[in-house]
Amino acid sequence: MMNSIGPKLVLQVDLKKKPWEQNPPLHNRWHPEIPPVADVRVREVFRVEMVDFSGGGITKDYTAEDIKHADQSVVHYLSGPVRVVDLDGNPAEPGDLLAVEICNLGPLPGDEWGFTAIFDRENGGGFLTDHFPRATKAIWYFEGIYAYSPHIPGVRFPGLVHPGIIGTAPSKELLNIWNERERKLEETGPQTLKLCEVLHSRPLANLPSTKGCILGKIQDGTHEWNRIANEAARTIPGRENGGNCDIKNLSRGSKIYLPVFVEGANLSTGDMHFSQGDGEVSFCGAIEMSGFLELKCEIIRNGMKEYLTPMGPTPLHVNPIFEIGPMEPRFSEWLVFEGISVDESGQQHYLDASVAYKRAVLNAIDYLSKFGYTKEQVYLLLSCCPCEGRISGIVDAPNAVATLAIPTAIFDQDIRPKVNKVPIGPRLVRNPVIPQCTYDGSLPITKNPLLDQQGSSCNMDARS
Amino acid sequence: MMNSIGPKLVLQVDLKKKPWEQNPPLHNRWHPEIPPVADVRVREVFRVEMVDFSGGGITKDYTAEDIKHADQSVVHYLSGPVRVVDLDGNPAEPGDLLAVEICNLGPLPGDEWGFTAIFDRENGGGFLTDHFPRATKAIWYFEGIYAYSPHIPGVRFPGLVHPGIIGTAPSKELLNIWNERERKLEETGPQTLKLCEVLHSRPLANLPSTKGCILGKIQDGTHEWNRIANEAARTIPGRENGGNCDIKNLSRGSKIYLPVFVEGANLSTGDMHFSQGDGEVSFCGAIEMSGFLELKCEIIRNGMKEYLTPMGPTPLHVNPIFEIGPMEPRFSEWLVFEGISVDESGQQHYLDASVAYKRAVLNAIDYLSKFGYTKEQVYLLLSCCPCEGRISGIVDAPNAVATLAIPTAIFDQDIRPKVNKVPIGPRLVRNPVIPQCTYDGSLPITKNPLLDQQGSSCNMDARS
Amino acid sequence: MMNSIGPKLVLQVDLKKKPWEQNPPLHNRWHPEIPPVADVRVREVFRVEMVDFSGGGITKDYTAEDIKHADQSVVHYLSGPVRVVDLDGNPAEPGDLLAVEICNLGPLPGDEWGFTAIFDRENGGGFLTDHFPRATKAIWYFEGIYAYSPHIPGVRFPGLVHPGIIGTAPSKELLNIWNERERKLEETGPQTLKLCEVLHSRPLANLPSTKGCILGKIQDGTHEWNRIANEAARTIPGRENGGNCDIKNLSRGSKIYLPVFVEGANLSTGDMHFSQGDGEVSFCGAIEMSGFLELKCEIIRNGMKEYLTPMGPTPLHVNPIFEIGPMEPRFSEWLVFEGISVDESGQQHYLDASVAYKRAVLNAIDYLSKFGYTKEQVYLLLSCCPCEGRISGIVDAPNAVATLAIPTAIFDQDIRPKVNKVPIGPRLVRNPVIPQCTYDGSLPITKNPLLDQQGSSCNMDARS
Amino acid sequence: MMNSIGPKLVLQVDLKKKPWEQNPPLHNRWHPEIPPVADVRVREVFRVEMVDFSGGGITKDYTAEDIKHADQSVVHYLSGPVRVVDLDGNPAEPGDLLAVEICNLGPLPGDEWGFTAIFDRENGGGFLTDHFPRATKAIWYFEGIYAYSPHIPGVRFPGLVHPGIIGTAPSKELLNIWNERERKLEETGPQTLKLCEVLHSRPLANLPSTKGCILGKIQDGTHEWNRIANEAARTIPGRENGGNCDIKNLSRGSKIYLPVFVEGANLSTGDMHFSQGDGEVSFCGAIEMSGFLELKCEIIRNGMKEYLTPMGPTPLHVNPIFEIGPMEPRFSEWLVFEGISVDESGQQHYLDASVAYKRAVLNAIDYLSKFGYTKEQVYLLLSCCPCEGRISGIVDAPNAVATLAIPTAIFDQDIRPKVNKVPIGPRLVRNPVIPQCTYDGSLPITKNPLLDQQGSSCNMDARS
Repeated sequence: MMNSIGPKLVLQVDLKKKPWEQNPPLHNRWHPEIPPVADVRVREVFRVEMVDFSGGGITKDYTAEDIKHADQSVVHYLSGPVRVVDLDGNPAEPGDLLAVEICNLGPLPGDEWGFTAIFDRENGGGFLTDHFPRATKAIWYFEGIYAYSPHIPGVRFPGLVHPGIIGTAPSKELLNIWNERERKLEETGPQTLKLCEVLHSRPLANLPSTKGCILGKIQDGTHEWNRIANEAARTIPGRENGGNCDIKNLSRGSKIYLPVFVEGANLSTGDMHFSQGDGEVSFCGAIEMSGFLELKCEIIRNGMKEYLTPMGPTPLHVNPIFEIGPMEPRFSEWLVFEGISVDESGQQHYLDASVAYKRAVLNAIDYLSKFGYTKEQVYLLLSCCPCEGRISGIVDAPNAVATLAIPTAIFDQDIRPKVNKVPIGPRLVRNPVIPQCTYDGSLPITKNPLLDQQGSSCNMDARS
Repeated sequence: MMNSIGPKLVLQVDLKKKPWEQNPPLHNRWHPEIPPVADVRVREVFRVEMVDFSGGGITKDYTAEDIKHADQSVVHYLSGPVRVVDLDGNPAEPGDLLAVEICNLGPLPGDEWGFTAIFDRENGGGFLTDHFPRATKAIWYFEGIYAYSPHIPGVRFPGLVHPGIIGTAPSKELLNIWNERERKLEETGPQTLKLCEVLHSRPLANLPSTKGCILGKIQDGTHEWNRIANEAARTIPGRENGGNCDIKNLSRGSKIYLPVFVEGANLSTGDMHFSQGDGEVSFCGAIEMSGFLELKCEIIRNGMKEYLTPMGPTPLHVNPIFEIGPMEPRFSEWLVFEGISVDESGQQHYLDASVAYKRAVLNAIDYLSKFGYTKEQVYLLLSCCPCEGRISGIVDAPNAVATLAIPTAIFDQDIRPKVNKVPIGPRLVRNPVIPQCTYDGSLPITKNPLLDQQGSSCNMDARS
Repeated sequence: MMNSIGPKLVLQVDLKKKPWEQNPPLHNRWHPEIPPVADVRVREVFRVEMVDFSGGGITKDYTAEDIKHADQSVVHYLSGPVRVVDLDGNPAEPGDLLAVEICNLGPLPGDEWGFTAIFDRENGGGFLTDHFPRATKAIWYFEGIYAYSPHIPGVRFPGLVHPGIIGTAPSKELLNIWNERERKLEETGPQTLKLCEVLHSRPLANLPSTKGCILGKIQDGTHEWNRIANEAARTIPGRENGGNCDIKNLSRGSKIYLPVFVEGANLSTGDMHFSQGDGEVSFCGAIEMSGFLELKCEIIRNGMKEYLTPMGPTPLHVNPIFEIGPMEPRFSEWLVFEGISVDESGQQHYLDASVAYKRAVLNAIDYLSKFGYTKEQVYLLLSCCPCEGRISGIVDAPNAVATLAIPTAIFDQDIRPKVNKVPIGPRLVRNPVIPQCTYDGSLPITKNPLLDQQGSSCNMDARS
Repeated sequence: MMNSIGPKLVLQVDLKKKPWEQNPPLHNRWHPEIPPVADVRVREVFRVEMVDFSGGGITKDYTAEDIKHADQSVVHYLSGPVRVVDLDGNPAEPGDLLAVEICNLGPLPGDEWGFTAIFDRENGGGFLTDHFPRATKAIWYFEGIYAYSPHIPGVRFPGLVHPGIIGTAPSKELLNIWNERERKLEETGPQTLKLCEVLHSRPLANLPSTKGCILGKIQDGTHEWNRIANEAARTIPGRENGGNCDIKNLSRGSKIYLPVFVEGANLSTGDMHFSQGDGEVSFCGAIEMSGFLELKCEIIRNGMKEYLTPMGPTPLHVNPIFEIGPMEPRFSEWLVFEGISVDESGQQHYLDASVAYKRAVLNAIDYLSKFGYTKEQVYLLLSCCPCEGRISGIVDAPNAVATLAIPTAIFDQDIRPKVNKVPIGPRLVRNPVIPQCTYDGSLPITKNPLLDQQGSSCNMDARS
């Protein structure tokens, strides 16, 4: 007479334990042979808990030392895989589409905090690493739907909570495609890809490595573990299986249509974000946290063929489809910064949306730094607040036009240009004491030549 | 006792005349010496009328021949320049910021129609010209806020009317910067910029040319005209002065903060769009129309220094700032397509948002073509409907993740994937008779290899 | 090959003429025998122009004398009736449903202004006439989508333009029902209806009268005119045929499903509003203006029986259905005032939403008057700004709970309560010089007893 | 160096216990002498848990017997009072304003279900009790943000979770005012208030009674308990202290400014709703549930005088102010039903918004019942889904115009009127097996005379 009440808890984490001590075990690679740790039926709402992407490696201490020395080989710790079966107990099959609804999600009770960081240029970097090479960190505290940070005062905003990573396991064939194309980039990239001159983040790709590798139920140190660890794809890029797509609107009520490559679909999730700006520009740039997902699955039999068209040499070159949920913060006013595909040196690029977006973000950072923030504070803020990055024009050669729209309501001051007031210098002396390390490397720093000529930056302290 | 009522008409067009016959005269280049044709004071609401970007060259006839042979040298016909003065009659000065509010805008009465087109690959192309090389056109009719097209049935949507082009005149110095960097690209591009291998639109840049040039009050054929025509920048790309930024949300109530480079600011506008999707992917891709703008200006004295930070080697390397207005169509449900920076051949690119967006758009086109449309119809639709192009991830090397979000309410059928129904073949036999030409050139066409192997495209007719 | 372009102008007004001089003639009563002045076909977009509800009786002069002496017998001047036929030329029939889409609408070019007023207590009054008995007027000017008033400074908002009146002609039978029930109220009301003690607006009903009557093509002074004028219903209340429903969201893209009572439907429209708050509390309370509508009709044959259920003793006791359009201003923050069904004397009423709403509006007026406004200014503002009046609770006996939600973005100051600042007296000395007359009648004024005891109102000047 | 993480749990409930067994104890009356059960400081986020309003009296069994015999004397069980102190430990004082932010809220884990019901006409009734006299119940299950019911199939919607009741303790003086005015209504109401003829819900007011009374820490049966129980106000109506205001938008991110009448403010909360329509028309009409609130308080010293204006004979006649939060479901399309103040018998009422709203709701019920639902199902649905009840016109004598707007997206079918399809009879045979009792009383039932004449209701089965 009655349905079961509430989500079924299928995967739990214990925040007092290390990621490699969790039971059921976590994993941080994509591979078809990582065994499922739980089964779910379609239409049942189930709950998955996840550690933050670093598995506690980055702490809530007010220091950036943990960021500077973060171990990039272990990211991202994922929960799963979860095997999905239909009402008759038959598993999802390769060629199906797995429709996953995000019924609910949030931080784990008792762990309502997160961090946003800039990696050191020698250790991961980010979109603007040539401008901001120093490891920097901000801690955020959550008050229900809102986040605030003692390190970026004057800002408070509702989070659009979402999983950074949600994906199905690749088949062996798809895994080979990934490893091959990424290896080729890593080997030949600098010689062939001119974008490297402008986007300075390195490495170009993260190839499989046994270092830091965790493979769930596969016993560490066995022959099998060794083989799989040498094949298993890193979790950093989004790919055909979904994965780290970092779509910030995948919040409550959203639906994700994932292609199925292995029997059971083997769904994994992780990298929970309390909030993120489009692009996640500082790389460790969302408000990173531990959290939970409450999900409900449907299997669309033969849905890959039915709904997805391959866009590449094999039937596996597909991408997931998403539906955005109805429950989002409502902002009415947006201030929009524009960038065109001309780089900081004045060089013209051809319809390059990445370069245009870099210039838009740099424009926004400089603008907002006039309101009492250091540029690092704004860089972190634009990584994690609900700002929108748009490709506005991609055909008006030679300039791509990209825009970054920022909701003005997140600030406790009016950040719009004013006709009558001509403020001088920093509008507001805010506390610029944000946890930050020195940059000890030798890679060149991109500076705004004009600012340096004038020697008049209000944020000199942040650039020394 | 009473204010003046209604906007002051400062620039009028006569749609029965050719663009070069208009009085006041139009212009289609950027140059500091094109004389203003009207003066406005700050705070007064004034009205500017504009021909469509082609000045009537593209007609409402149901044929694509005009598209195939469109003269690219004449675009875009602009109204203006308008000289802006303050309440004391003093003009805007270089270094000021010109705040322009869009109070109202729309099509011209009696001309409530527009067109969306794909240029021939040999004559302008577009974002996906290697996939869709044939000149194609759709006519749209307006019913108040809505547009519908007999060539793309089953779709009707409210327009987010906006000017494709709004900008101030460049100074001579800024003009030189533009011409130099674009000439350099044109000369050395193919050898140095690898994006050219993936984005096939040509030419790389449109350098100054006397062909098709119109310079407002400057008498055609004079020595002065010759000199200026050889210097004046083409209007195709968005640049530091705003220009063709194609930001689709610049509709009623929006505000644009434009840098001032010459005395009086010399504001020009044109390229009215009834609606556009982010990216305007088919290039002639908005719903192009004639129209009017009702504008109100403020001068923020010294505002360039106050609010804009140069992002390049000179103080002129700035970009405008925008505020989005409160009056936009409200959509609740979006279907989102994703692309990653792996191209159609399977090659891995490095954080390339342009490539990722290309794949997202291709994914969307193939998906929607399953609902009874030809791919050309969808390509046109995604160019002009209010879809959003996002840079979702730009740091997860090597994959940029771009997304294209489409409001589901614009379709008269439910376009979401379904669990229960497995439709076979085209869901709906729609009339695929869209005005289209043959492609007679010899440039290679990118095909989806898999589709061709299968020989099972439901839209073969559109590709023959 | 081509559709006709743009809306077909079917009814025009000349603002230089008096309402009774217009051609085609206007009307200001509901009656089945008022002949149609134009025909339209379903699916064609047609344009109707309208004078303001007073036909120019209320001017843009900065005086309230015209309000004080406004002739209530002439309201509302309507354009139409328009006879609607289907594609075969057959008219709409009684029992059909007429679906009317509002494609576009706005003020008439050159007449971009409006007024909001409080009628004198002896001449129409309004929802709070016992509190605000004096004739008062504010003039608004339109800047595209925005309105501002020199009489209510510090406020500017986008209008949700709509027709106050849109309706079909009643049948003779329906007209009789109206006249009978309203006559009964007028005759016996004060003895039987206790709400009269609390809502002081008078008269209770406006019965048919020849005074001020205009009947379109029916020749004034004829026998026929006399008969019809004595039967024809006044246009003030909304009724079964739609009419003066004052639903503020019926703007661009909305659809209205009107019951058809006579052959051809005989659609009439008027009372254009640039903006209105829910309830239109000051009675002459929207931003009243002349304007145009661009409409498109469909006939749903037999739709009354199909879709409408009578709610009364005859099949004619039905109400229209509405669909709200997608193009509305987007506000994110609302300040909400509550009222319960306890009146100003402290008397408890039983689930009376009107009394509760009166208290909510009074609460809002007093609150906002603390920010530098007179109470009359706020009363006018809440009549015409896009505020929402809600019935929040209608079952928790004995208190109905009504709320009034005001978008905070319309103010140029932050009107929310503050923890840290305790402002004293008026926050801002605004110019309270709003056109206003004396109240020379003898009806009692409801005062807030407490304020009078304290004698400390910051707006004494507005009450003397 | 670090803030405390997460909300502080100050009040817990145990759903396995009866409401009178909870520790800390609950209460179900308003009285200044009910002692606080917890202290909180301003700015700390604290968590309060609450049983459902009936304290488990209404079960998740699929029967309406518990509704029919529900004990109205015990509602509503509240958690609290909570005493609020400032950072120095000084309590809120009478005359202050207590700003309460709702940081987060939701159902209690493991109890993710709720109910919506119609009370028997002899036992509480509701807004339409004369039409729907039978006890009826629907059970809802929650899937994250969504609710669905096996008793109202074809509908699923995101909840706008809110507390039905949030209020401060009244002072003795305010309590006396309440009791006096409500007693007067109860004693003289039927003779004086004509609304009773139209709104049939009874009793008119719920006066203090010892029956069912629970007073928190006050020991049951003591002399003190007896005195207080005889004075303490029932919780059913919203009043000056907030209380049962049932404002459905008070969800995540909202702020409530409550007047403080006693030292410490003594904040109590309860009656959690997963969702509610404006008006909560069926009385037990929200989706009633147990739940939690995470709140954060500020004290605005002297804020009552500063921000609230009394609207009655004493300084205590004030109402709270609310701010609506930014996180609400986004609906784009609404179908709107209208009502005017003419009742079911055809009688004209004078500007009566309650009567108008009754007609609007009845219109909506009849309309939606054409799509395969029984009228009771729709009545329940409109009580609990996120529909908006508006006072559209309150000045156009004699008709108030009220509207009920329903988001079309909550239905899995298109509920808009169609031009082309004329469906016959119920569109969809849905399962009308909704738990329902017989009505055994003798009060008259209001029927739609027309429907009864025709004998053609498609929902006869639900009325037999």
